[in-house]
Formats: sequence, C-alpha cells, structure tokens
Amino acid sequence: MAVLALSNPVVQSYIVYSAILALKLISVSTMTAIARMTRGVFANPEDAKTLKGKVKFDDPVVERIRRAHLNDLENIPAFWVLGALYLTTGPVAAWATLLFRVYAVSRIVHTIVYALIPLPQPARGIAFGIPYIIKWYMGFQVAMYYISAV
Amino acid sequence: MAVLALSNPVVQSYIVYSAILALKLISVSTMTAIARMTRGVFANPEDAKTLKGKVKFDDPVVERIRRAHLNDLENIPAFWVLGALYLTTGPVAAWATLLFRVYAVSRIVHTIVYALIPLPQPARGIAFGIPYIIKWYMGFQVAMYYISAV
Amino acid sequence: MAVLALSNPVVQSYIVYSAILALKLISVSTMTAIARMTRGVFANPEDAKTLKGKVKFDDPVVERIRRAHLNDLENIPAFWVLGALYLTTGPVAAWATLLFRVYAVSRIVHTIVYALIPLPQPARGIAFGIPYIIKWYMGFQVAMYYISAV
Repeated sequence: MAVLALSNPVVQSYIVYSAILALKLISVSTMTAIARMTRGVFANPEDAKTLKGKVKFDDPVVERIRRAHLNDLENIPAFWVLGALYLTTGPVAAWATLLFRVYAVSRIVHTIVYALIPLPQPARGIAFGIPYIIKWYMGFQVAMYYISAV
Repeated sequence: MAVLALSNPVVQSYIVYSAILALKLISVSTMTAIARMTRGVFANPEDAKTLKGKVKFDDPVVERIRRAHLNDLENIPAFWVLGALYLTTGPVAAWATLLFRVYAVSRIVHTIVYALIPLPQPARGIAFGIPYIIKWYMGFQVAMYYISAV
Repeated sequence: MAVLALSNPVVQSYIVYSAILALKLISVSTMTAIARMTRGVFANPEDAKTLKGKVKFDDPVVERIRRAHLNDLENIPAFWVLGALYLTTGPVAAWATLLFRVYAVSRIVHTIVYALIPLPQPARGIAFGIPYIIKWYMGFQVAMYYISAV
C-alpha cells in the first residue's frame, strides 16, 4: 500500500495543482461578471435594474464564457477526485507530477482560448483533449489497481 | 474514531466506485461530442466552421445529453464528498459497500435512460431517486456523528 | 507538517460544514422538482406527459432556481477541495472554523435570496462575494504554503 504523507512530494504536487485549478475555476465567475457589466447584459431582473443593463440570455461573449465555465465543471472536479485516488496507487513521483502539471496548464490554456481569445479549432480541442486523456488514464490506473478488492 | 487505512475494504470500495463514477461522468462529454458531430450542431462558430455544421442551441438529442450531464454534475461530486465523509464515521463494511455499489449502478442507469435510450417515466425518476436518497442518508449519518463537535 | 487526525476539531468542523453544504446543494434539486410540478413546466417530453404539464425552457421561477443551482456547482465543489487543502496547512483552529462556518451560512443565504425569496441587489451579491473571497484566501494560503515544493 502506498503511504500518503503530506511530506510526500507527489502529494504536495497534487495539492498545489488542485489549488491552482480551483482558483482558475472560480476566476471564471469574475470573467463572467466583468463581461456582464461591460456589456450590460444580466440574467436576473434585479441585477439589470441595479446595474442599469437589460436581461438577455444570448449575448455571444457572455455565453462563451459560461460555456467555458460549464466545461470546467465537467472536468476539474473529476480531476480532483481521480488525481487523489491515483495518488493512492503509488505512482512514480516524476510521472505523476508531470501529469498534474500538464493537466493544469492545459486547462488554463483551454479557458484562455475558449473564453478570452477565441482561436480557430483545433486549439480548444487540443486543450480539452490532453487533460481528458489524462483523466481516463488515471481512472484506469485506479480501477486496475483496486478492482480485485470489490 | 474510525481508522481509514487504504487497506480497509470499505475505503477500497469507495475508491473503485468513485473512479467508475468519474469515468462515467466524463464519458458524457464524448457522448455529447458524438451527437454534435453526427447531427452537425455545435455551440461555437469555430466548431461549426471546422466540422461543416451549424450553430444551434436547441437540438433535442444534444440537449438531452447535456441535461443528463448537468444532472451528473448536480449529483456525482456531492457523492464523492458525502461518501468520503461517511467513511470517517466507521460504517459497517458490507452496508457501506452496498450503498456505494447501488449508487454507482443507479447513476449509470440514469445516464442510459436519460441520454442514450429515453424511456417513459418513472424509469429516470427511479434512477435519480435511489442515489438521491443514498446521499441524504450518508449526509445525515455524517451530521449526526460529528454534530457535537461544532 | 500538519497532522490531520479525524479527532482534530478543525477537521471535524470541515467535515460538518462540507456535509451541510452537500445537503444544501442537493436540496436545490428538490426545489426545482417542486417548482416544475407546481407550475407544470418540464424539460423532457416524457416528464410533461406523465405529469400532465408542458415542455418549457423559459419559466422564470424554474430558471431562477436552476441558476442558483448552477452557481452552487461553480462554488461548492471548489470549497470542498480548497477547504480540505487548507486544512493541510495547519491553520489556527478557531480561525479556520470561523471561515468554514461563514462560508456555509453565506451559501445558504445565497440560495434563499436567489431561489426562494428574490431580494433586490446587493443581497445576492454579498451572499456570493463573502464565500468567494474565502475561497481565494484559502487557495492563496495553500499555494504559498506548498509552492516551494513544486
């Protein structure tokens, strides 16, 4: 069995990249708020009233940011869990750290090319696909390691 | 206090079903991508351009899969947390393993009857309701176990 | 390194508030279901058929609750992770417990003023902003504590 002490460098690597991804995830809320305020489009009548805008659900800039946000929700919590479970299988430290780092960087790039600077495909597809494959890889490693136990 | 070693069979059961649910959750992204590509409907102009489809937000098949996906996001992360916290209350191993197993199977059935093979109600209602009740049960067990501490 | 025993009061505080937030999060599903049934508006044809309502995607009451739900998904899983990682930095017990408590109470107030009793701004803005700042604070504490390790 792997020993998961907080002094373990792989555990610390998981902690740092998980925290970075959490801050990246919640920063999209601020991006949405800024886009709503600068464009004067809101989802709730009380917001539109206070900020002198209008209620509008199809502003293309705001909706792009919201899609990037939803894509984060579909991917980042699954990373937090699969990454933590993957740690329990005792992976090689340098390899696991590399996976966490590539995961985090790719998801940051995904937000940039989706919500900030829309680029032609396959930019967003690659930034989605690499971390997506990393999640499948970690999930299979976990399943194979423990499957005899269930 | 419960001892939560990785060699504990309940902990291993939690790990396996959490990993399965994570892979199930992210597999809906692939289902959405396949539906978008076969039907030629996309959410972003750059996707529509590259894949020679059109931008459309109300395709019934794609939207069903997206609703199934959102329902996963509303339920599976809460299971990850409640299941892990429930482990700390030292539940009977066979009972906790049964709950995790029923939870995972029901959520897989939920995706099938929602996104893949739409069935008449109450098929989806049951596949939603059973794991929903399991989450409430685990949450109450955790609250009752620790509430004196806060 | 911090020692994270389940007997540690800060850990128990994290567990209780995380469980409360999970139950709060999933209770919004029930609020949505009640609103759909009392107003007869559903997202799926099989639901509308069984419950003798109609398919409608722009009912203002149901959509407000759904926005409150999505806002929870954008914030509560990030709290679960950042709170757990923050515990590993060995925070002062009374301070960490206060943060968790204020976080949980604010998110409950957020749901009330968003989904149950719509209040004029800045009620919802404050109920969103306080826990949002707490997440940034915890994330920075974690990053600063571990950043030398990566």
